[in-house]
Amino acid sequence: MSIPAGLNDAFQAYERALMQNDLETMSRLFADEGTTLRGDGGGLLIGHEQIDAFRRGRSGALPRELVDVQIQVIDDNTALIVAVTAARRGGHGLQTQLWRRTTAGWQVTAAHVSAPPTTFDPAVWRIVGDPLVPPTGTGDLQGQTVAVKDVFAVAGHAIGAGVPTYLDGQPHATTHASAVARLLRAGAAIRGIARTDQLTYSLAGDNPHYGTPVNALVPGALPGGSSSGPATAVALGAASIGLGTDTAGSIRVPASYQGLWGLRTTHGSVPVDGMVPLAPDFDTVGLLTRTPQLLRSAAMALAPESAFALSGAVVDLDELGLTDLATYAEAFRVHQAFQAWSVHGAWIAEHPRAVLGSAGERFAAASRITSAEDARAREVLDRARSTIDGLLGGAVLRLPAAAGPAPRLWTSPREVERARRATLELTCIAGITGRPALVTPGSSTSEGPVGRCLLGPPNSELALIAWTMRNGEAE
Amino acid sequence: MSIPAGLNDAFQAYERALMQNDLETMSRLFADEGTTLRGDGGGLLIGHEQIDAFRRGRSGALPRELVDVQIQVIDDNTALIVAVTAARRGGHGLQTQLWRRTTAGWQVTAAHVSAPPTTFDPAVWRIVGDPLVPPTGTGDLQGQTVAVKDVFAVAGHAIGAGVPTYLDGQPHATTHASAVARLLRAGAAIRGIARTDQLTYSLAGDNPHYGTPVNALVPGALPGGSSSGPATAVALGAASIGLGTDTAGSIRVPASYQGLWGLRTTHGSVPVDGMVPLAPDFDTVGLLTRTPQLLRSAAMALAPESAFALSGAVVDLDELGLTDLATYAEAFRVHQAFQAWSVHGAWIAEHPRAVLGSAGERFAAASRITSAEDARAREVLDRARSTIDGLLGGAVLRLPAAAGPAPRLWTSPREVERARRATLELTCIAGITGRPALVTPGSSTSEGPVGRCLLGPPNSELALIAWTMRNGEAE
Repeated sequence: MSIPAGLNDAFQAYERALMQNDLETMSRLFADEGTTLRGDGGGLLIGHEQIDAFRRGRSGALPRELVDVQIQVIDDNTALIVAVTAARRGGHGLQTQLWRRTTAGWQVTAAHVSAPPTTFDPAVWRIVGDPLVPPTGTGDLQGQTVAVKDVFAVAGHAIGAGVPTYLDGQPHATTHASAVARLLRAGAAIRGIARTDQLTYSLAGDNPHYGTPVNALVPGALPGGSSSGPATAVALGAASIGLGTDTAGSIRVPASYQGLWGLRTTHGSVPVDGMVPLAPDFDTVGLLTRTPQLLRSAAMALAPESAFALSGAVVDLDELGLTDLATYAEAFRVHQAFQAWSVHGAWIAEHPRAVLGSAGERFAAASRITSAEDARAREVLDRARSTIDGLLGGAVLRLPAAAGPAPRLWTSPREVERARRATLELTCIAGITGRPALVTPGSSTSEGPVGRCLLGPPNSELALIAWTMRNGEAE
Repeated sequence: MSIPAGLNDAFQAYERALMQNDLETMSRLFADEGTTLRGDGGGLLIGHEQIDAFRRGRSGALPRELVDVQIQVIDDNTALIVAVTAARRGGHGLQTQLWRRTTAGWQVTAAHVSAPPTTFDPAVWRIVGDPLVPPTGTGDLQGQTVAVKDVFAVAGHAIGAGVPTYLDGQPHATTHASAVARLLRAGAAIRGIARTDQLTYSLAGDNPHYGTPVNALVPGALPGGSSSGPATAVALGAASIGLGTDTAGSIRVPASYQGLWGLRTTHGSVPVDGMVPLAPDFDTVGLLTRTPQLLRSAAMALAPESAFALSGAVVDLDELGLTDLATYAEAFRVHQAFQAWSVHGAWIAEHPRAVLGSAGERFAAASRITSAEDARAREVLDRARSTIDGLLGGAVLRLPAAAGPAPRLWTSPREVERARRATLELTCIAGITGRPALVTPGSSTSEGPVGRCLLGPPNSELALIAWTMRNGEAE
């Protein structure tokens, strides 16, 4: 069948628009329907509106040339075009488009895009190997691979903490951080050193220096932070265990956003030597996995003081009668910021352009918090701790792991900040009480999953995992 | 429009067949036409026959489940299905299929598959970072990244040489190999340590321990070896410079197969300290790039004794009147094998199961070559050297870089061996004479490119590159 009139022109016009990032023409050449599709390895966008938003949220497509165009004509008004492209940076890509002619002219109703194969994604990893570091012992974690958040010492490597200038000034570690050493001794290998938000001071995962790791479940969504690299690596199967930190939700939020199992350990239960701090009163070590079985094994290696027994009841957050969560979250935010400036302020003052974007703004705001303000915040936190501990006792608190699903990349900074504040009202409870928190994967709606979180009494990590596995809490 | 009868059953049957690697059902459900398409990030296969061969050549698809199926019905006999899949190892994939109903029932006429995003490809890299090693100086190579073949010492890392058992026994290097140090001093960073065929003893690039790197240009084709990892990394844009070795074609063949610029340096001109040898009489250091400009800069850093001047004429191989190429190639093969066994025989005898597949067979055959056979081969090589040098003098020899395009993964081992032997008749000339060789990218036919090769007098590397750029030898 011959190629229908106008099809080739429309195809070429789309290709030109793509290369010029001409959003208007691209929008016009995609059918203005709720059923229009656009997908790639990152997932499938459904509907013209979402596709437009996705395009507005990126800076453009990779420069490329067409090297082969195959057309399957279906009828005079419908054809499938499959094109091989040569990326200017090297390698071939592929795109498939279904074109249909209506009164609006030729338009794409479905598109599928493959970029050239990636062999190394520097948005996820700083250094990665097969393995990077072999195990030092044998045990339950044999055969497992760990994505280590770039805030832990790995012998032979400097710590980067998500900030290039910070990395430049760090010595090569001569010994592993205790948390790293414990997993190696249990038989796991280190797969690599994975990206973090700058100095861990974010819940978004959009490090401006190194790019934003893909969200493995939700197309075009933030991965969650600050343990963004470990979370994406585990969600994509590039590592089986993520080793991270959690101060205000840095394990729980990426677990929630990417449908992972996540564990924040009891404050003080896992040594933090060889780990870059953010706010020592709240900092904890944490884990990410795709299965509860592996989370249990990894937790036994990381937090050997944890117990399996759990006697208390399970209480939902809205049954607890906590009316002051907004006040608690604000006090948490202030004291976290005050401590973050105490830890990093001198370095940031010496390197004023090292930390960019919202984390930079957060540090700037932190620098203006007075000791008096911090003292008032600590008073609130002390009261909050008494209140919550009094209400909970040995019970387990059940609450959402985050205030909502992962924001999309095209969400406004104001909306992302609003999501952060709402999430802090949930995540601050573990921070304030030092209690361990387990995140179980939420069911994936069209907006993406929201994990469920269980907060247990101190050192109840293994009990929480066992209880969850027994009660089928995973959806 | 409602979903046509039978479509869903056919779609589900195909999905089941894919998961069971039921080749017959998959073949039956794809239209038996020369125009049927099947593509992914690795490229586009055209025609039912090629798609069948591709499927026979792999062990099956990644285990997965369907999580979302979108159907666009075009007419009662045609529909596009776009499905999101969840890979068991983690992450989402995407597939688009155009289904058409004929007298043969419902069949796919075009399919586009995306696996979940890859963040680290261990078939290409052993260790990779952003960067792995920063530059030690400034110069023309500033901003460039090097994929170092895993036969060169990189301080802080052991050399693996493509064999896990070999890697296990190696110490961490304390200094860089000279070739590595020269590129670092010129301003390049090391991106990573890239895969090689086992002990460099292959031209195929299909290391059985670590998998076969993708050919960036030809779907389903071998990448070429033994500098397979650097070649694929450069061809895909994951590094800008590949640092490799060339004994019998290990730079020239992957350059030819993947449309790259490749340089084998003059024998003895670049120090080989910190480099795993194969056959020292033929071993050389080499480079791979995507552009001649960068190849020139890298060659200036790597081989500073090379000169820009070139006075001789250019002669095509078939004008030279060399009638004994098969004899020369056989003598080359024997002496290469004899030396390879001299270098690695003791280790291989101690580790009899360490080197697998065709490289293992080649070493086994090498172990049976007698000193007398080697002496006879060396006599032939001496005569060959005199003959070729006498014919060429200061002239430049032009010949194909390989005997044909990259064999596909489904090519029989016998055919791959035949291609190797035919290629050796071309590549042995540089080995025998020690002359430098420049590969320029060939034009890409449907079978894939065959590079063109220029052999110059000793230390004419820069002159060859300059001549080629001036004369537009690149197609």
